[in-house]
Amino acid sequence: MYRIDLNCDMGESFGAYRMGNDEQILEFVTSANIACGFHAGDPGTMKKTVELALQKGVAVGAHPGLPDLIGFGRRNIDISPQEAYDLVVYQIGALYGFVKAAGASLQHVKPHGAFYNMAAKNRKLADAIAQAIYNVDPQLILFGLSGSELIQAGEAIGLRTASEVFADRTYQQDGSLTPRRQPDALITDGQKAVQQVVRMIKEGKVTSQQGIDVSIKADTVCIHGDGPHALEFARQIHNMLPLSGVAVQAAGHLR
Amino acid sequence: MYRIDLNCDMGESFGAYRMGNDEQILEFVTSANIACGFHAGDPGTMKKTVELALQKGVAVGAHPGLPDLIGFGRRNIDISPQEAYDLVVYQIGALYGFVKAAGASLQHVKPHGAFYNMAAKNRKLADAIAQAIYNVDPQLILFGLSGSELIQAGEAIGLRTASEVFADRTYQQDGSLTPRRQPDALITDGQKAVQQVVRMIKEGKVTSQQGIDVSIKADTVCIHGDGPHALEFARQIHNMLPLSGVAVQAAGHLR
Amino acid sequence: MYRIDLNCDMGESFGAYRMGNDEQILEFVTSANIACGFHAGDPGTMKKTVELALQKGVAVGAHPGLPDLIGFGRRNIDISPQEAYDLVVYQIGALYGFVKAAGASLQHVKPHGAFYNMAAKNRKLADAIAQAIYNVDPQLILFGLSGSELIQAGEAIGLRTASEVFADRTYQQDGSLTPRRQPDALITDGQKAVQQVVRMIKEGKVTSQQGIDVSIKADTVCIHGDGPHALEFARQIHNMLPLSGVAVQAAGHLR
Amino acid sequence: MYRIDLNCDMGESFGAYRMGNDEQILEFVTSANIACGFHAGDPGTMKKTVELALQKGVAVGAHPGLPDLIGFGRRNIDISPQEAYDLVVYQIGALYGFVKAAGASLQHVKPHGAFYNMAAKNRKLADAIAQAIYNVDPQLILFGLSGSELIQAGEAIGLRTASEVFADRTYQQDGSLTPRRQPDALITDGQKAVQQVVRMIKEGKVTSQQGIDVSIKADTVCIHGDGPHALEFARQIHNMLPLSGVAVQAAGHLR
Repeated sequence: MYRIDLNCDMGESFGAYRMGNDEQILEFVTSANIACGFHAGDPGTMKKTVELALQKGVAVGAHPGLPDLIGFGRRNIDISPQEAYDLVVYQIGALYGFVKAAGASLQHVKPHGAFYNMAAKNRKLADAIAQAIYNVDPQLILFGLSGSELIQAGEAIGLRTASEVFADRTYQQDGSLTPRRQPDALITDGQKAVQQVVRMIKEGKVTSQQGIDVSIKADTVCIHGDGPHALEFARQIHNMLPLSGVAVQAAGHLR
Repeated sequence: MYRIDLNCDMGESFGAYRMGNDEQILEFVTSANIACGFHAGDPGTMKKTVELALQKGVAVGAHPGLPDLIGFGRRNIDISPQEAYDLVVYQIGALYGFVKAAGASLQHVKPHGAFYNMAAKNRKLADAIAQAIYNVDPQLILFGLSGSELIQAGEAIGLRTASEVFADRTYQQDGSLTPRRQPDALITDGQKAVQQVVRMIKEGKVTSQQGIDVSIKADTVCIHGDGPHALEFARQIHNMLPLSGVAVQAAGHLR
Repeated sequence: MYRIDLNCDMGESFGAYRMGNDEQILEFVTSANIACGFHAGDPGTMKKTVELALQKGVAVGAHPGLPDLIGFGRRNIDISPQEAYDLVVYQIGALYGFVKAAGASLQHVKPHGAFYNMAAKNRKLADAIAQAIYNVDPQLILFGLSGSELIQAGEAIGLRTASEVFADRTYQQDGSLTPRRQPDALITDGQKAVQQVVRMIKEGKVTSQQGIDVSIKADTVCIHGDGPHALEFARQIHNMLPLSGVAVQAAGHLR
Repeated sequence: MYRIDLNCDMGESFGAYRMGNDEQILEFVTSANIACGFHAGDPGTMKKTVELALQKGVAVGAHPGLPDLIGFGRRNIDISPQEAYDLVVYQIGALYGFVKAAGASLQHVKPHGAFYNMAAKNRKLADAIAQAIYNVDPQLILFGLSGSELIQAGEAIGLRTASEVFADRTYQQDGSLTPRRQPDALITDGQKAVQQVVRMIKEGKVTSQQGIDVSIKADTVCIHGDGPHALEFARQIHNMLPLSGVAVQAAGHLR
């Protein structure tokens, strides 16, 4: 039996500001990456989002970001590995407070935005993040870009990892995502997206924009919670995967 | 055998800014209240301070403050009980991340500055704080002003509490501290300070500025880490109490 | 000829977060109160909002708030008059940078939220705010609640003031607004709202919820930019006032 | 007659945190670069620092930084030119509020830390900064690293510029500063530092660590306000330059 986790970033509202469609998207995902107050989120939002995810039976993870609220954590900041370590421990801990207060447990950690991208390529940052997660709780699962330095760092230290793939993005022949500024970067057809994911899971391959097959590991699919079609897209992915023989389950249940 | 805990606020540096004398004051206290990033402190400072306290054998506690870095958490902010709850869970969690990463455990929680003062008088805030602490970990000890609503809220919910007294402040006949703006607010003579503390511990009484004895419970003494004489004062309190038959021990070891 | 100014808070988006309906509401107001980054707004939002208002021929004012992004400036913070002075100078200056870069001039200053309410009742804060505005530019017009300490402080120091009234709020016999938590606090009928405003302007009176007429000065009407009916309400106020012989003009052109 | 400006970063305290030695260093410099709240500084500190500089007859400039209080503006953040423009307008404006309230005028703008270094090499950022300054006030003088893109951007747009050199740093044969991590990066001998500066001013040359003379333009010397020897070093530079025939004057007086 093939299995896959569907994860989505959430809890990204802040104070009086609303973002995302958490309540509805939770119907279609199995893992929730909850913002921890550095790039988005605030204590009240974190509490509500943890409780909402648990009510819906969705596994909860920390989604630590760079300290850049105004840039929504999307701008690279030249932090040291030590600073990365400290940011991760702090943010996991903060979210863990709400999870523990709710009598639940934390499943995973997925860095956000620029932090995720920097950690995909920079092994020293990746090692610091993996070490931080391991030190807080070695049972936590590290979510990172499939094939990235972050996944390798997690495995090297002995963490369980979940390799993340994208249903709505195309790939290049080197295994990287087609940059968003290119016209063929996005897959908007739900059926095609599902097919791409199913092949990743069953064959461990994705067809690149150059027509060449690339090897890829798929443990979890990133589902976007924002944008006009996000919800419909999430529904399609969630509902069509089982029809292709792929069970949708939280990463913690995958072995 | 009489026993008392000595606690001090620390980890209040921020980024490039230094505050306090943590390394030296840790020689003379048994409980460290570590700032959690809202009124002071940052992830790197929290990590270093937790490790320093543990090295010195000092028990570690969270010192959550109002979200007011520019005001150092000393200005009242009209937050709701729900906001207070969320602030406390977040900050305890964040510090707990570093404590857990260090393989240690958290002993206590003491609100900071304006938050501490507001919680001393406002039962709804006090209840929210006590509930937050209880939900995160019912073994945590709540530090609050002796005789305050915060101590009562902690006891009502079933938390262990530590009633805090001041060695270097005088008291009024209603049990409150003499406001700092009054000339007789401070006790600068170390000997007198020790005598006040010893009487609080042994007799449960303090002589008010009006000459009348007031009942007071003393589980922990607040030691200040800043100011020119802080260190010398801390040394005196720490060294002289045992000579009066009062053992200095972390709150978690009392009783 | 009777005249009135219509003002609206705007520029309250922040980073990736959107708030309000600035572009459309600008069609119906004559003065824009632009957030300055403390309770809402950021440099990029300020630039765009200033330029948008100027394009639409709407006068630009600074809308300084308390340093409380997470609380949207709606929570009282116990700041000193000196701190109030400094906050106001800083925020007026910051907005002035964008206004000057656009080759325009600043018309007015209206404090935001809790800062506005605190300044309405606390004369020392009101004096500090008035002094700050006067020192930066004595030509600036101070917007404050009609009958408030803030208006009195502005007049005492020699500033032009604009007394603000509300079209969609009812009044009490002491001239204060009916608290929002009361069921009769809001006027949702556009016609009634216009009638209330017209009477305030022409007769200097408003009928309180107790049925008693209260004297009130009306130089500018607060138009809300948020909420489902805001735009339609703004359109009604803007279009119907001239039919009652009241010209809608920016405060700087009054008198 | 040769002339030089001596500038120093100041106003970098924040809330309860103290930094620098502003009052004393002001005796020895002619231009003060005052932090504007993004990397350091706060409204109250800005007010006091502006007033202090004016009392001492020192020209006042804005010292805008990246939005990174925790990193003291020393970490590169991957901001866009538009974001750089907005940051600069905002921060100049905010400081200008205090300068205008003091009845004075602003002399110059010098970006801080990582922002300064990024702008030295990245022409698009440099152009955005120069445009921001020009739009706010074309009379402002732009301070930048001698020979940098920032100086070229300023000249291209028609701003007056002041080329900055360092008395206490050695240079490489390509005109760049020797990186701080190298053992020969710093000049600690006041006499040598003065000689280096005097030669830069009189001959337009500096001897690089490779022994080769490099052309350099020197309009202003950066004086450090922090560190144990800062004050003594500043005193030496200030007092010895006139003995070598170089008058110390604020950049605004240099023609």
